[in-house]
Amino acid sequence: MEQRARLVRMHDTDNVAVVATRSGLPAGERVDDGLVLREAVPQGHKVALRRIEAGEAVRRYGVAIGYAVSVIEAGSWVHEALLRMPEARALEHLPVATDLRSAAPLPGQSFLGYRNADGSFGTRNLFAITTTVQCVAGVVAQAAERIRRELLPRFPNVDGVVAIDHAYGCGVAIDAPDAQVPIRILRNLARNPNFGDEVMVVSLGCEKLQPERLLPPGSIALRDERDAQAAGATSGLHVLRLQDPAHGGFSGMLDAIVGAAEPHLRRLDARRRETTPLAGLVVGVQCGGSDALSGVTANPALGHAVDMLVRAGATVLFSEVTEVRDGVALLSSRARDAEVARRLVAELDWYDAYLRRGGADRSANTTPGNKAGGLSNIVEKAMGSIVKSGTLPIDFVLGPGEKLGAGQRGLGFAATPASDFVCGTLQAAAGMNVHVFTTGRGTPYGLAAVPVIKVSTRSELAEQWPDLIDLDAGPIARAERSIAEVGEQIFACIVEVASGKRRTWAERWNLHNALTLFNPAPIT
Amino acid sequence: MEQRARLVRMHDTDNVAVVATRSGLPAGERVDDGLVLREAVPQGHKVALRRIEAGEAVRRYGVAIGYAVSVIEAGSWVHEALLRMPEARALEHLPVATDLRSAAPLPGQSFLGYRNADGSFGTRNLFAITTTVQCVAGVVAQAAERIRRELLPRFPNVDGVVAIDHAYGCGVAIDAPDAQVPIRILRNLARNPNFGDEVMVVSLGCEKLQPERLLPPGSIALRDERDAQAAGATSGLHVLRLQDPAHGGFSGMLDAIVGAAEPHLRRLDARRRETTPLAGLVVGVQCGGSDALSGVTANPALGHAVDMLVRAGATVLFSEVTEVRDGVALLSSRARDAEVARRLVAELDWYDAYLRRGGADRSANTTPGNKAGGLSNIVEKAMGSIVKSGTLPIDFVLGPGEKLGAGQRGLGFAATPASDFVCGTLQAAAGMNVHVFTTGRGTPYGLAAVPVIKVSTRSELAEQWPDLIDLDAGPIARAERSIAEVGEQIFACIVEVASGKRRTWAERWNLHNALTLFNPAPIT
Repeated sequence: MEQRARLVRMHDTDNVAVVATRSGLPAGERVDDGLVLREAVPQGHKVALRRIEAGEAVRRYGVAIGYAVSVIEAGSWVHEALLRMPEARALEHLPVATDLRSAAPLPGQSFLGYRNADGSFGTRNLFAITTTVQCVAGVVAQAAERIRRELLPRFPNVDGVVAIDHAYGCGVAIDAPDAQVPIRILRNLARNPNFGDEVMVVSLGCEKLQPERLLPPGSIALRDERDAQAAGATSGLHVLRLQDPAHGGFSGMLDAIVGAAEPHLRRLDARRRETTPLAGLVVGVQCGGSDALSGVTANPALGHAVDMLVRAGATVLFSEVTEVRDGVALLSSRARDAEVARRLVAELDWYDAYLRRGGADRSANTTPGNKAGGLSNIVEKAMGSIVKSGTLPIDFVLGPGEKLGAGQRGLGFAATPASDFVCGTLQAAAGMNVHVFTTGRGTPYGLAAVPVIKVSTRSELAEQWPDLIDLDAGPIARAERSIAEVGEQIFACIVEVASGKRRTWAERWNLHNALTLFNPAPIT
Repeated sequence: MEQRARLVRMHDTDNVAVVATRSGLPAGERVDDGLVLREAVPQGHKVALRRIEAGEAVRRYGVAIGYAVSVIEAGSWVHEALLRMPEARALEHLPVATDLRSAAPLPGQSFLGYRNADGSFGTRNLFAITTTVQCVAGVVAQAAERIRRELLPRFPNVDGVVAIDHAYGCGVAIDAPDAQVPIRILRNLARNPNFGDEVMVVSLGCEKLQPERLLPPGSIALRDERDAQAAGATSGLHVLRLQDPAHGGFSGMLDAIVGAAEPHLRRLDARRRETTPLAGLVVGVQCGGSDALSGVTANPALGHAVDMLVRAGATVLFSEVTEVRDGVALLSSRARDAEVARRLVAELDWYDAYLRRGGADRSANTTPGNKAGGLSNIVEKAMGSIVKSGTLPIDFVLGPGEKLGAGQRGLGFAATPASDFVCGTLQAAAGMNVHVFTTGRGTPYGLAAVPVIKVSTRSELAEQWPDLIDLDAGPIARAERSIAEVGEQIFACIVEVASGKRRTWAERWNLHNALTLFNPAPIT
């Protein structure tokens, strides 16, 4: 990246650069190399560094983000209307494993985590109540509130109660081909490492998504709460059905849930953090409310942190299918081997078909805020999004809602929609225990299950939202800090947050979005 | 309907009847007419009244609910495995307007409602905060809680604060053909008559669903909160954007929302109920967690109440596309005219295609609970579901999420999915101000925006859930009350609840499900 005073050019071959200054640049302004702006250009937007002929590629990040509709003079504002978007890259004949960089290990890093029976580690010690169907959500919300009020004060080592509430479970085509996606999301959400194997299942009774469908195949058997008590069970899923005559009505249901929670809380409360290598970290990275500085400041810095994490033995998940679609060749080049490349392409191909079936394509991704922030189209957005995955080889690929397998370590692509709350939900299902979220326009995003570190792309946002933004990558745009320096800050922040030494702003305010499943199948 | 002691036969031509007794009937039991049961049959399940030949139609409600796979002897338990389901009725060559019954008006009925500017009436006096996107949900939830705690005690005539929280708004293909459905649901939800035109819109700023898209075309202009204050605005939608630098961070956002709420609450608090004809009622009817008694007790009784409501000038909406699909000929016969029949068929046809696109069909509707309750398939379920629409002509049809138009009165089919929480959300968008929900298996269903009257199909459920079930239709199965008597009870209960003289159990417990949009378009 080349910092040309108030303009940022990302690659030698780029013929546009991005305005970094807060107030933009006025018409007539002389920038480096004698270039004079022909018109005012807002912050985050692009300036033509030289004359671009009609039909010629407009290049940023070293790639064609579009083709000039007509001649663009040097010093012009290069906005959306001047560009024709390239066709989506075909998914055949991609370069595979051609860009496998190696990096020295980063040994000696550790954090303080809660060890789980399956070898994973929690960064928080939460009690989760999962649900088979939305029908029970109102009852579970009130039960969770009673548990917080009546029981939690007695169990100070438990960080909170999370109700896994969702719109799925009944009134859905549960045997449709794509129904496996929401079902496995729910199944895997309940197994997030921050829930310490102490999940309670609340079912209605007559719903389509019977608790047996939620059961991870081959794992601990689902038990009725009475069986569990009789057996003196010490951990594992257990099931409470609201239609069970034993509970009586609403008050009885509340009592049953609150009563059943207590042994779980007691066991969770007895747990303590222990020092563990970074292999116990599963960091999900995401961006949302992006602007053109996302790809200049926060995302490259996060990419640097991701490289450090992987070198230190942690696992990192990046996602957002429609935001990598235009960079598929960059990713296939970084695929560890042909099988990883094949899985990557299969996920992108499935998503292409899913969008097509609904009369849309990847260009449906960009928002008014993206465009106001200077992102002309999904190609430009994708390039700025992918940099947060760092530079190292891609070791594995997960389908939407799949959970990290035993051998899956290092850098993984978790194929999820780009919608912030859906992506976050699916990364949580994959096993994420720390979340890093970069934002340019700004969103008060949070999750109940996993701490979310919010990184701003520009200092104006960090100043405007001092009680929401955890870390500011804005100094990079002013050349006050390097990408590597901010990357190291992010890395250190992840370790602190994971260890429970620092709470994120979203945690301090108890601010979180709804868990939002991805259901590509019909509802009935 | 013929009550044969412990068996209920619905129609003269039926060759099966349903067991009404609580504990079912044992093998060897002699029932009326000398019929002896060949095996034990549970409550709600069907008994063959005579020998049914292989391939012969099994008839309930006077229609073929399936065809015998092999010979079924008299006195046998007629369960799912013995039936082949009929093909879906083709949507061509349907009878149109052939069954238009007239009924005497039922004059002199009134209720106490809150008059709105557009001529509609509220049955509750609620303050709503709607949202353009899930990103703001965490902030709005906390703001709503502060409004309840800090402001509501000063405004005792305001019944509550409703946050219209949803998973839509960004990360969606907002220009896809079917995206109009979720957008109009949100637009119309905010205009529910129980919100008294005092809706506040909280937007993030950069989302795809900009507040202007939420604006009802041709209605009051959207105003920024500062413009609104400057203009001394007295009512209408107004918009608060969290990314607006004026708010600062999280604490400032909360203050801004709470501050902006106060004038709305003051105006709502000044309103009083007034006596109004039943034309001000819009009753949505729905069933969920159904069993075989749904079509014997609660739904026919509700159908009787619906006839009374329509005769008294009220508007009634029935819904659930996949549950009427097999009864399309019954409905087209009751269509007021050819245009109503055409709209009905268009909605069913659209839904057929929607399901087909996802690899499913109407048979995906039935649940394990339905089957355990004696409903063999969707045909049988549909017949029992449709009876709750009463017997009168269908006056109009609404697409999913459409709002009742100015001239639309009487009985309407609101085409919605059958999922309880989605159907309830869409009926609320259509303008429903009282909801009646029948249930056999039992669900603690509720909505924040509209009072929900829950009617049980069997007395066992009413006894098990005395603090959830508002009215029991079970006595019909024991011939202790007639369908008409329970129908009159439901009618009286609707008027009482609408008038604020009675609160439903869901209201007393503040128990409600999430608003759940129907989004047939892809997410990105």
